[in-house]
Amino acid sequence: MPESQEKNDVVIVGAGPVGLLLAVCLARWGYKIKNVDNREVPTLTGRADGIQPRSLHLLRNMGLKRQIMAHEPAKVYEVAFWDPLSGGKGIQRTGNWASCPKFIDARYPFTTLLHQGLIERVFIDDLHKNGADVQRPWTITGFKNDGQDKTYPVEVNLKHVQTDEKETVRTKYLFSGEGARSFIRDQVGVKILHKDPISHVWGVMDGVVRTDFPDVKMKCTIHSDHGSIMIIPRENDMVRLYIQIASSTDKDFNPRKQATLDEVQASAKKILEPYYIEWDRVEWYSVYPIGQGIAEKYTTDHRVFMGGDCCHTHSPKAGQGMNTAFHDALNLAWKIHHVEAGFANRSILQTYEAERKLIAEDLLIFDAKYAALFSQRKPSAGEVGAAAESKEGEVNEFVEIFKSSAEFTSGYGIAYGSNEFNWSPDHSAQSHLFNPQGNVLRTGRIMPPANVTRVVDANEVQLEQEIPLNGSFRIFLFAGVPSTTQRAVADFAANLQKKWSFYLTFQRKDIASVSYHEQHNPHSHFFTICTTFAAPRAQLEITSLLPPILARYSNHVYADDVWDPRVPDAKAAAHAKMGLDAERGGVVVVRPDGHVACVVSLVEGSETVDALNEYFEAFVAKGIGKSSMQAQL
Amino acid sequence: MPESQEKNDVVIVGAGPVGLLLAVCLARWGYKIKNVDNREVPTLTGRADGIQPRSLHLLRNMGLKRQIMAHEPAKVYEVAFWDPLSGGKGIQRTGNWASCPKFIDARYPFTTLLHQGLIERVFIDDLHKNGADVQRPWTITGFKNDGQDKTYPVEVNLKHVQTDEKETVRTKYLFSGEGARSFIRDQVGVKILHKDPISHVWGVMDGVVRTDFPDVKMKCTIHSDHGSIMIIPRENDMVRLYIQIASSTDKDFNPRKQATLDEVQASAKKILEPYYIEWDRVEWYSVYPIGQGIAEKYTTDHRVFMGGDCCHTHSPKAGQGMNTAFHDALNLAWKIHHVEAGFANRSILQTYEAERKLIAEDLLIFDAKYAALFSQRKPSAGEVGAAAESKEGEVNEFVEIFKSSAEFTSGYGIAYGSNEFNWSPDHSAQSHLFNPQGNVLRTGRIMPPANVTRVVDANEVQLEQEIPLNGSFRIFLFAGVPSTTQRAVADFAANLQKKWSFYLTFQRKDIASVSYHEQHNPHSHFFTICTTFAAPRAQLEITSLLPPILARYSNHVYADDVWDPRVPDAKAAAHAKMGLDAERGGVVVVRPDGHVACVVSLVEGSETVDALNEYFEAFVAKGIGKSSMQAQL
Repeated sequence: MPESQEKNDVVIVGAGPVGLLLAVCLARWGYKIKNVDNREVPTLTGRADGIQPRSLHLLRNMGLKRQIMAHEPAKVYEVAFWDPLSGGKGIQRTGNWASCPKFIDARYPFTTLLHQGLIERVFIDDLHKNGADVQRPWTITGFKNDGQDKTYPVEVNLKHVQTDEKETVRTKYLFSGEGARSFIRDQVGVKILHKDPISHVWGVMDGVVRTDFPDVKMKCTIHSDHGSIMIIPRENDMVRLYIQIASSTDKDFNPRKQATLDEVQASAKKILEPYYIEWDRVEWYSVYPIGQGIAEKYTTDHRVFMGGDCCHTHSPKAGQGMNTAFHDALNLAWKIHHVEAGFANRSILQTYEAERKLIAEDLLIFDAKYAALFSQRKPSAGEVGAAAESKEGEVNEFVEIFKSSAEFTSGYGIAYGSNEFNWSPDHSAQSHLFNPQGNVLRTGRIMPPANVTRVVDANEVQLEQEIPLNGSFRIFLFAGVPSTTQRAVADFAANLQKKWSFYLTFQRKDIASVSYHEQHNPHSHFFTICTTFAAPRAQLEITSLLPPILARYSNHVYADDVWDPRVPDAKAAAHAKMGLDAERGGVVVVRPDGHVACVVSLVEGSETVDALNEYFEAFVAKGIGKSSMQAQL
Repeated sequence: MPESQEKNDVVIVGAGPVGLLLAVCLARWGYKIKNVDNREVPTLTGRADGIQPRSLHLLRNMGLKRQIMAHEPAKVYEVAFWDPLSGGKGIQRTGNWASCPKFIDARYPFTTLLHQGLIERVFIDDLHKNGADVQRPWTITGFKNDGQDKTYPVEVNLKHVQTDEKETVRTKYLFSGEGARSFIRDQVGVKILHKDPISHVWGVMDGVVRTDFPDVKMKCTIHSDHGSIMIIPRENDMVRLYIQIASSTDKDFNPRKQATLDEVQASAKKILEPYYIEWDRVEWYSVYPIGQGIAEKYTTDHRVFMGGDCCHTHSPKAGQGMNTAFHDALNLAWKIHHVEAGFANRSILQTYEAERKLIAEDLLIFDAKYAALFSQRKPSAGEVGAAAESKEGEVNEFVEIFKSSAEFTSGYGIAYGSNEFNWSPDHSAQSHLFNPQGNVLRTGRIMPPANVTRVVDANEVQLEQEIPLNGSFRIFLFAGVPSTTQRAVADFAANLQKKWSFYLTFQRKDIASVSYHEQHNPHSHFFTICTTFAAPRAQLEITSLLPPILARYSNHVYADDVWDPRVPDAKAAAHAKMGLDAERGGVVVVRPDGHVACVVSLVEGSETVDALNEYFEAFVAKGIGKSSMQAQL
């Protein structure tokens, strides 16, 4: 191993959504990343385009939503269902459903449609701001976790795609974001399991069309006597059409079946009758077979990881591919960060596969149902329309699945099971303060949104967005009514400062030189603290209400005084949405990725901080909390 | 006059806010502009920084809000008032008021604070997109409206600031956006009238501070026993402080009085006691005398115009300078456009001075009161605090003026008087359909905001923002309940297509080749039409409800089905906010700058279109409407 070998924290192969989001997070948090991609430029045409509500929320948390929206993407609020009219008279609309129904408490209740290449460029611009870039066109030719360097155990061989230029580098981690055809996955011998035996051949076409079909600017699923089509509006007057060319349920199924552009357009015209459709131009056209698959493992050694399409493939119908990729990357990013920053035990890396593979399995189950229904040709035309109109309620199975799956497809249904991060009664932390009475938050799920007023500048803000994606645990102190909780808040601050608390254990080494203007991490990169009182802003004087260590986060002190239509009668809407008592408050710990970690009562004495110490003790790399203290004594 | 002389539509001198906004509008609408500025680069430090609510609304309408917000400006929601404590014990907060109170129906109820240079760059980037730029450092050395070329009557002499390079160009219009010291204004002999005899010397300082003063991230006006200060938060942890150095009401007033940075900082420290303040760095510091002044004319020949600081100067306290400049430019831009496009009579240019000078006069009256109060030293400390706490209500004159002026300072108080554009009973259009019963809109004022659902894509949108700043009149057809208005809507469309209607008269010459995807101006650049039904979106089928000429604006058809907290009981909130009957609707014509032009009943027969023809006939350049038809017969 030559001493001169370049050393990286993470080598990321592939600069699609999963690789780029991982690269962006790690570059922002100060890691040295090397992101290679075998394409000369970012995606020019085709591929993914759907950003689901939760993903947009995440991009906002990364400060990237504005850049996405600058491209004026299409926003899908509703999905229209079209079915055959009886007597071969064409098609009719049989229903409309919100793509993100009101029962989901989403900040952005719509799907954002934008070309994947534009999304990639937003990430790449962000990499540039952090001194990183994508190395193109380069590919991986080999790697081994040989452990010859304890810190950088993995050797990676890279090669320029067109020339003979080669590099051999060392890295702490190697990540495959290569997509469905992954060299890394093949090398480590991880198999793809095919869940659903049915596969399909799809034609997909992006273009600018003229049509009198009235729902061309909405997402539509259209069944006709001549086949099925899905319409997805896009930026710049573009429309994406998905047409099913063949299905393994067909008698003469051929997974290599092809169709020319003309054939697919002719088919679309036939399906859309009595409406017309003409193409001004076609930007991209492709026919490809899709089968469902899931990688049996996401890693074999917790040094070489995989994510995104490399681990799960499915139909493009529900627009989940890129979104699942984002969350794979996010999940891994903060866990690598917490290990490498010395916060957490290396064993937390096991939760990456455990958490994300389950989501992929859910996705495949959903997708199989959805895709099968989509490709199903109705036995008799008009049947569905008649059913939809019946007074007995909606009997269309397709619509039913769509509705019941809205939470899942929006991204707000992601629920990680209980483990060291997601508290449950099985967790090692056993304080009776966990999961206080009235609590409605479910650990492992996204913290709900809530508007509050920031005390220092009276700005109405989105509480869940106030801490940017900084890799830190988010400690939301809901401090109830100041006169009631005065003592509990003082005790909370005092106990944070005790020797074995997580607070002192993970204090920044450079704490003496931290800028006056640092607001998110003045004390530690392990956590950020927000305090929210159930009182009007004008009554809140930060320095008189909060002990110095909490007052230090002066930009993160809020008044829970904004009315919320979801809890119209609540005195303090944010407290109410968390299921916390407006008088006595409580503490909500949220993982760096926005998922709820645990909820603890806020009480006088040491118990609240004790509970947090206990919670963190389950996975942190240093001894904290009571047991450590006792071991010491 | 050499044939080879460069010919421009508009030569704009000065690339500050007024010059740039004018340049941006005209460049977008296809005019050839030449914008020169005697500075080598855009503003680097200091100058204006406050974007008022209505101005941000305008920037949104121009599609520039996102670029402004990308700089993460400070947002001021509240103004805090601080006054002396009795016994020389320093200062205390005596009140907080919303900077844009709830009684103002503003989309963005806050002031946006961003350095002028960053705002200028947003405009300059937009110029680049339209193939225009600012020519620097160039200045004007002479001009004459010699009429030697009928189309380009004005000759302008320009010179490079540092070299001997010179240009002589011809132009249709010359505009001075030079600021308070205007060569053009001097040359045409327009005097500045000094309204308020009192003048002040101000110190202004931009910097990054450390302080325990709790309201440093809010706008504050602070009176102390040691002087007065105003605090304005800015982007990037910056704070602007205004400190009054001297006033002409002082015994020994010297308008050239100076103060060093150290003196002003020492003074600020004294004023803020018992709080501390320290500077990390000072970005900009200046001391300058401010007197109130207003130009007696904004033009002498309707070819050479002036606007912005060239026409009005006043104290910086209420953050109105740049905003007044924006609206000067906007007002002139669309009027020049309508004359040059052949839509309107040249005489409409007279309304520029008539409308804008009145606003400047209002501003100066407001400013005099506000500035005088601000500089007033309280006779006895603590008096104000006691008064503010009294049960009898607020007696602090400063606060009173502030509150009563909020509508004005927010920009939503701008009210243009009646003239050919702003219908009143004195208007030449005398149809009995004008100003229908129940109408609450006031002509000459901004159309109120209203959320509606766009039919084609189910997006919830801001109706008043749906037509971008395209220079066109905005015809909002509120079409009530479809079953009720079916005939009236059909008649409206039929009468638009009659020979002498404004609709046919101003039809695009290139109408046969207009793109299928053109949505704002498919028929004419004189107007854009939006249709809003008082019905749920799902019930609206555009092609069956609207005749083809209205259905052509398919992206501009809306459902008035969004609940609005300001009219909680309304069946159709947008109709209600306009004061229109939810059943029968009405037509609201809005000027290209967003101010209400006229409101007309929607009735069966020809009368609605007749009334619009009558209205437009008052200022258009071609014969339209009944009288033209009769003249022809």
